[in-house]
Amino acid sequence: MTDSRIGSASIGISADGPIGWITLMDPDRRNPLSVNMMRGIRDALGALGGDSSIRVIVLQASGAAFSAGHDLNELVGCSLDDGRAVFAACIEMMQAIHRVPLPVIASVQGVALAAGCQLVAACDLAVASSTARFGTPGVKIGLFCSTPMVALSRAIGRKRVLRMLLTGEMIDAVTAETWGLINLVAEPQTLTEVTRSLAETVAGASALTLATGKEAFYRQIELSEDEAYRQMQETMAVNATTYDAQEGIAAFLAKRPPVWQHR
Amino acid sequence: MTDSRIGSASIGISADGPIGWITLMDPDRRNPLSVNMMRGIRDALGALGGDSSIRVIVLQASGAAFSAGHDLNELVGCSLDDGRAVFAACIEMMQAIHRVPLPVIASVQGVALAAGCQLVAACDLAVASSTARFGTPGVKIGLFCSTPMVALSRAIGRKRVLRMLLTGEMIDAVTAETWGLINLVAEPQTLTEVTRSLAETVAGASALTLATGKEAFYRQIELSEDEAYRQMQETMAVNATTYDAQEGIAAFLAKRPPVWQHR
Amino acid sequence: MTDSRIGSASIGISADGPIGWITLMDPDRRNPLSVNMMRGIRDALGALGGDSSIRVIVLQASGAAFSAGHDLNELVGCSLDDGRAVFAACIEMMQAIHRVPLPVIASVQGVALAAGCQLVAACDLAVASSTARFGTPGVKIGLFCSTPMVALSRAIGRKRVLRMLLTGEMIDAVTAETWGLINLVAEPQTLTEVTRSLAETVAGASALTLATGKEAFYRQIELSEDEAYRQMQETMAVNATTYDAQEGIAAFLAKRPPVWQHR
Repeated sequence: MTDSRIGSASIGISADGPIGWITLMDPDRRNPLSVNMMRGIRDALGALGGDSSIRVIVLQASGAAFSAGHDLNELVGCSLDDGRAVFAACIEMMQAIHRVPLPVIASVQGVALAAGCQLVAACDLAVASSTARFGTPGVKIGLFCSTPMVALSRAIGRKRVLRMLLTGEMIDAVTAETWGLINLVAEPQTLTEVTRSLAETVAGASALTLATGKEAFYRQIELSEDEAYRQMQETMAVNATTYDAQEGIAAFLAKRPPVWQHR
Repeated sequence: MTDSRIGSASIGISADGPIGWITLMDPDRRNPLSVNMMRGIRDALGALGGDSSIRVIVLQASGAAFSAGHDLNELVGCSLDDGRAVFAACIEMMQAIHRVPLPVIASVQGVALAAGCQLVAACDLAVASSTARFGTPGVKIGLFCSTPMVALSRAIGRKRVLRMLLTGEMIDAVTAETWGLINLVAEPQTLTEVTRSLAETVAGASALTLATGKEAFYRQIELSEDEAYRQMQETMAVNATTYDAQEGIAAFLAKRPPVWQHR
Repeated sequence: MTDSRIGSASIGISADGPIGWITLMDPDRRNPLSVNMMRGIRDALGALGGDSSIRVIVLQASGAAFSAGHDLNELVGCSLDDGRAVFAACIEMMQAIHRVPLPVIASVQGVALAAGCQLVAACDLAVASSTARFGTPGVKIGLFCSTPMVALSRAIGRKRVLRMLLTGEMIDAVTAETWGLINLVAEPQTLTEVTRSLAETVAGASALTLATGKEAFYRQIELSEDEAYRQMQETMAVNATTYDAQEGIAAFLAKRPPVWQHR
């Protein structure tokens, strides 16, 4: 496993077989999403996305909190242009999660608040410790969580998002799983193990298949159903002619394991 | 607490600190949503929305039923234009709930049927007594609940809406909470207390923040994710420069309570 | 009850009062959705949809599996045009389910995989045996379930769909019910009885009302909320002037059973 930091941001990045780990490493400040940190995450996603040995990315954090959200110091006395710059960096990071051609799994060990909660919502999959908490408390400081709600309202039901947004109250990990914000709840001491197991399952697939499917998922979900079907018909037809699909089908019919070209 | 009625509609309207209460008061007829009643609710929302002392609205009902839905007497022998007028009044009321710049909480003590169920779905938040029931029984009288399904199908999953619509069968309060149609289930004797507690939590926020957030919520949820992010970036940047956000951030960093300009 | 087969496809079709049953009958091969089978289902839907004695359709399967998905033999060594033809037949079948003017209920006795899982997602309602399993395992054979995800991602939450798609792992019937993919879980020996009971409830409605409501449901769900309301206002106004609605309202007010014109 290699370990390195990206620029001056407090981000660890490491590779462990086909799994790339991005770690928020500013625990004493509860991993605030400063502009620097957000650009660091975006760049780390880009770096791992361009590494052909990596098949899946895990986003985790060190310390007691996953992330407390934006670095409020960057918003004190901010001008409109300052604000725009902060939220532009935030959105670039969120969109980078959807655009990287590898599945991204959030592994949440503590509180995930505001943009930190959005980060979890934006990931493709999420595992959380039973001690994790999720919230959008912006309403309590006069700064409604308007960008977090873009991701949250596409992940869970309307009334549930509105309750989080309008009260600012936190929900626990079991509630988050019940509402569909996360996929799995793990005991604190097994969080990394459960995350790794999910990552390894995903990493068993062809990289080309994963990239094709992820890109297609976020494309089709924005379309009318008829147009989505029209586009996915073509996506599947092209997919079916690839080496990895033909190998996968042949292996399945012969009851042997497939050997991917795009490992 | 002041109490008044709006026009000839059987609607009570009262203010209790920052909470405005709208009460359906035609219990013997199960609070039917006559054209008069729907216009009364719309006007009550407008009146409370324009009262700067009010921060949150509760919509409740008197008697055993929350609302049995449209006043069917208004549809007996109706012409096409009569029908259009009835459903136009219904839709104006539902849209008024989304457009009033204050959160609206439904507090449901009994059955909420057809347009009465839609009314709950259209509110931002909802609390219900454990004895409440929800249904869209129009299919049983040959009048499919087509306008209720607009609100319902945006609040809960497709198969669940279709089951309610195609069978006309009622669901209980716990099921409604599980499906995300309501936020909280209370014992019948504590419904008002639980509703008030939720309303007070919401009312603790800056009025400007709540208005900004609610308007933005219903705007962004209709957009593509990229366009939603683009618009919310601007909404948050503007929000961050307001007095209340700067006060909220400063108070948070100083660990003191905020004092809102927009109380 | 009559029984017949459609063309050379292994499909049984029978009528039992107002209930039309379509049965996949290739159990030894786990009911693969060959092009022939998919066209057969499409044609069976068309035939039952045009039979005025039928009010609701049930889609079920014989043997241990509901359906293992596409017939992979049809994709071995396929050209791009071959692939297009296979997925075009698949999409035509799925769209036929939405377009037939009768509710369609899936009754799932065993595993429903890939396009078989999509078939369940595409039906209006679904009942499953507690022994049923659901999955989109295409990722394991290099062929991402891109057309199934169109139906699935419109039926259940994003993170849950992505987990199914990215891991290929199956979920059980209780999980499927919790996630909203199916409506009811039955014990294996009561599946047909529970399905029939649901079908009979639906079949008690006016055929005109069901056709109006189903068409309107899939139309409005694709629209902005304001446009959906605008269209549904007209749909309900027209609906209210029909014989069956006037009869239904009159019968309800007189506390007698309605007698539909469109039985």
